[in-house]
This record gives sequence, C-alpha cells and structure tokens, in this order.
Amino acid sequence: MPAEPLPLNRSSVQAAHKVIAPYIHRTPVLTSSSINAIASTPQSAELLIGTPWEGQTPAKPTFRLFFKCENLQIGNHAQALAYAARTRGVPAYIVMPSISTPSKIAATQGYGANVVFSGSTAPEREAVAKEVIEKTGARFIPPYDHPDIILGQGTMALELEEQVEDLDANSDDIGLGRGPGLLDAVISPLGGGGMLSGIATALSGTGTRVFGSEPSFQGGDDGRRGLAEGKRITSVATLTIADGLRTPLGEVNWTIISDKSKVEGVYSVGEEEIKKAMKLLLERLKVLVEPSSCVPFAVVLFDEGFRKECVRLNVTRLGIILSGGNTTVEAISKLFGTSQS
Amino acid sequence: MPAEPLPLNRSSVQAAHKVIAPYIHRTPVLTSSSINAIASTPQSAELLIGTPWEGQTPAKPTFRLFFKCENLQIGNHAQALAYAARTRGVPAYIVMPSISTPSKIAATQGYGANVVFSGSTAPEREAVAKEVIEKTGARFIPPYDHPDIILGQGTMALELEEQVEDLDANSDDIGLGRGPGLLDAVISPLGGGGMLSGIATALSGTGTRVFGSEPSFQGGDDGRRGLAEGKRITSVATLTIADGLRTPLGEVNWTIISDKSKVEGVYSVGEEEIKKAMKLLLERLKVLVEPSSCVPFAVVLFDEGFRKECVRLNVTRLGIILSGGNTTVEAISKLFGTSQS
Repeated sequence: MPAEPLPLNRSSVQAAHKVIAPYIHRTPVLTSSSINAIASTPQSAELLIGTPWEGQTPAKPTFRLFFKCENLQIGNHAQALAYAARTRGVPAYIVMPSISTPSKIAATQGYGANVVFSGSTAPEREAVAKEVIEKTGARFIPPYDHPDIILGQGTMALELEEQVEDLDANSDDIGLGRGPGLLDAVISPLGGGGMLSGIATALSGTGTRVFGSEPSFQGGDDGRRGLAEGKRITSVATLTIADGLRTPLGEVNWTIISDKSKVEGVYSVGEEEIKKAMKLLLERLKVLVEPSSCVPFAVVLFDEGFRKECVRLNVTRLGIILSGGNTTVEAISKLFGTSQS
Repeated sequence: MPAEPLPLNRSSVQAAHKVIAPYIHRTPVLTSSSINAIASTPQSAELLIGTPWEGQTPAKPTFRLFFKCENLQIGNHAQALAYAARTRGVPAYIVMPSISTPSKIAATQGYGANVVFSGSTAPEREAVAKEVIEKTGARFIPPYDHPDIILGQGTMALELEEQVEDLDANSDDIGLGRGPGLLDAVISPLGGGGMLSGIATALSGTGTRVFGSEPSFQGGDDGRRGLAEGKRITSVATLTIADGLRTPLGEVNWTIISDKSKVEGVYSVGEEEIKKAMKLLLERLKVLVEPSSCVPFAVVLFDEGFRKECVRLNVTRLGIILSGGNTTVEAISKLFGTSQS
C-alpha cells in the first residue's frame, strides 16, 4: 500500500493489478444458455413481486450473462488482510466482533493474524481498532472506504474483461451488443460500496456501463435513496436476508457512485426476488451464492425498470458479480424448506 | 460414430477427443485449501459412520484434490445426444420414461429431438427403443454400455490432465506425489460404468491410478461386490439417495473395470457420508453437486480402507469427478432441513 493513494482511475486499477498479480486466486467466469433464456424472457406480472407494474408491456431484453464467481474466492476482508500481511512478513491485528462465526475467526487466525475482539456496532469496532493502533502503531486498513481498497476491488473488473475475451474466443454466439471481448455493462452488489466503486473506477472510460444493486427491505436501498436525494445516507437499519449489504455507503465510495459518468444507476429488489435468484443460481448455474450476492441477478431478472433501461441502452452482454458464498445447508433449508418458492 | 468401434485404449480416447474438440463445453477444475486440510486430517471414530473401525490408528493421508466440475456440464445423455444429432443434421429419437422430470423432457425437445415415452424399467425402455429402431432404421446409442460412449467419457480425463497442468503452472504448492502436471490418481462415481471405464481407458499406462466409488445402501455397491465375487452383478434394487448410481454395470464396462491393471479398486460409502460430503462441497467448494456425484469425495473423506490405500500407494494429487448437479433447493431442504447433520 503506497503512502499516497493513487488517483481513482483505470490506470491506477491496472497498476494495482500488476502489483497483486502473483498473489491472485483467479475465480472462473460461468455462463449458462438456460439462464440466458430465462433472463431474456419478458416477465409476467405474477413474477414481478414488489415492482411497479401497471399493465405496461413487459420489457424484452436480450441477455448474454457472464457470472464472475467471486463466491469461489478465498477469504473475506479479514482473511485477505491476514494473508497479505503474512505474505509480506508484517504483523496483522484484525478487529472482529466477538459474535463472528467461529470458522471465520479460526480462518483469520490460521493466516497468522492476531484477532482482537470487539462489540458488533460500528462505533464499538472503531474504538477497539483505535486502541490497537495506539498500542501497536499499526496502520488502519478499512474494509471499503479507502482508495487502495477501491483500486484492489476494481481489479476483478479487469480479470472479468480478460475472461470474457477468452470465452468469446471459444464461442460462436457473440454477435450481440458491443461484440466479441467486450461487455455492455456490469452489475454488482452495493453495501459499503468498495466493490461497486472499484468496478466503476476500473471501467470508467471503456464504454462498459456499471450498475449497482441493493435489497429494498426495511430501507436497505440506502444507495438508491441517497442518489435520489442527492445526499449520502449514513445510517441503515435493515434485517434483509442480504446481510452483507446492510452497511451504509462509505465516503470515498459515495464520491464515485454518485458520479453519473461512472455509475449508471442503482436498483433494488425485495426478499422474495433475492430468494428466487438464489434458487436459480443454485439449480441452473450449480453454484452456491449467499443472499447478498444474488441481488444483482435478482435485479436483472425481476426489476422492470432495470430491464427497460437495458433495452434502451442496448445492454446485452452483461457481467454479473457473484461476490460471496458464505452460507450453509441449514440456512438454505430455512430459506426454502417450509415456504413455497 | 465410426461403424467399427476403435480399440479401448488411450490413443482411441485421444482420437475421440480430437473429433469432439470443437463441440466441447469445458468445465472448470476447482481446488480448495480448506477442503485439502479437512481431507488430510486423520478421521475420528465418530466420523467414520458405517466403516469398520477397530481401535486402529487412523490413516494420515496428504491430499491435494482437484475437482473436475462436470456438474457444470450442459445436459445429460439424452440432451447430449439430441444436441449432437442436431449439430450433424441427423434426426434423433430419445426414449425417456414418461415419469421423467418435465424440465429434462423440455430440454431434450429443445435440442430438436423426438422424445418417445416409455415405462421406467429397463425392459420397458428397451422394448420401446426396439420399436423405434424397427420403424425408423435408427441406430441405437446406449447410455454407457458401448465402446464409443466409453471413449467419449474418457475425454474428460484428458481435459482434467491439461487443466491440472495449467493450475500447477500458476501455483507454488506442487512438490507432492508425482509432481507438477501429474495426478497420482482419479476417483469417479460408478453406476453403469461408462464414466469410470472411460477414465480408466484414458489413463491406462500413464501411471495415474483409477478408483471407482459407489453407494453401499441396500446393495448399491454392486460393482464392489461383483469384483469380490469375480462376476458381474446384473441386477440391483436400491433406493439410495445417490439415484444416478442405482444401475448395474454394463458388459463392456465390466471388462474394463474388472481389469486390475486399469481400475485399482472400487470403494463404497453410506448415505450419511454422502450427505456430509454434499454439505462440504456446497459450503466449502460452493458448488451444487447431486448426491450421486458426492460419492467419490465421500469415499476420500470417510473410507478408511481407501485412505490407508492412498497412504500405501503414495496418492496425494487426486482428481475427483463431480459428475452432476441435478437437484433442487427443495431436495436440499429435505435432506438437511429436519435431521441433524
């Protein structure tokens, strides 16, 4: 991490990519013609749970979807940081809420980091982090609200671009949208905004549009609402099943996400839509994606506003970030076991 | 399909691979250091459900596992045949039990095949197939008991070899077993035997050993029992959750699988072990694998006989075939929802 952050643009993401290249665990990009067919089928009113629907003709987008499987990535922020510190021989102190799942704590310690426990609210965590910094002289690495984190997250967009090019080189079904090797758009989840602002930074100026997506339950769509009001919303209290996206946007992230030249728009979906997307990803793409990470695909399937926008903007070749897979068969059973879905 | 089948050896698999290369949907090979660590941990008696355990010291194998994700493959035998026939402009008639799941019927018809319905027992299906052949002059393509099918299935072993080489080129954790780019062994599910005999044919003479795996429930381990008796078992009646492996071995498949120079051994596991393997594959590898296809990994984790054999034979770099992912969230909920596991 350089002392002065690089400017937030595509070249800086490329520079970051070069630095971390030897340490990258490259995740696959998957495609599915049956999922493309489903996503390209105009929606019936019945399917459009929670979305405004007033007898209009449903949009008829044509999608060729590229799923970037970051759910197959190793480790979250804590583990990644612990791993990076060990690689460079630097001691790491990771502040984690004491209610964190034991497997996550063990994995972080497994990389040799000192795990320091805190309460689970943001002020409690920050207070403990401050203490550690005072005691050890450590440098604070926030999970999303920092230019270096944003540039690092952006590298997944460069990887996705390369992989789409490789896939196209082996396919004859490419004559749509911007054509071989190019993406018309990418859609990612939006929680704190590290991933979305990183991707937007990486793709800025390339012609590939960038969209964000959020859960709408109990005001979890703070990004979308903030954009509508022209002001960052700094506190959110939602118990959405998309628990990774309960966080409000960070400051640096907001400056990028609220820049219309970088992020085309942010859309939101309800809980049932997230569940339906999760079911399809499991049964058709055969990958386990946690609810938070199903949100972008849920928007693609069910949000008429987004689908109409894709028709208008000629978005066909669409990258979808599947950002995490931290869930269990018990959680799946709870989500799908008793209710009809 | 040539009029005279090629001999069943590695060069024929290579020749088959060349023929089908332009049409292959290449599935990824995944690895997971956390799964390697779990598989390399000596088993406690508590874990060894259904496996003989008499106070012996548990085996201490060291595994580096390579999962060949054929569960991400497009289509089963019916769909593959329909697709191949359409590609070559040949009419296809697919005999399917009328109780087949509607999505499988629709997918097969979607590739332009004529689906002809039958009863669900083998004699009922064969009778209908015979009728179709008499009426249309069609050529019969069995699902596993034919040299061409075996050679085609074998191509996945060649693909796996290539992919392991690629992965090793990007890894520094390779100094084990036979070393970079090589596999010590491959283990696959065993039902009718098409896949296992194909892989054994492809790898024969390469130094990579081949193992089969079956469910033991209600005599589903007909391959293992047949090998012990020196005689192919031709009828099986088991309701194992590994429903793709309820079939007895085919004749041609048996000639290969009973050849000790080609298949090192066949192991079997119980229902609870299959479920535990499925849970781990979902939660740690993040992929959806149907119970039948979890059987090889269940053997690796839980069968002390197999684990001891791996220590004895110095098997570290082990390829595991994940052959299918045809299941639903409802089925997962049913498997894991109520019981403790």
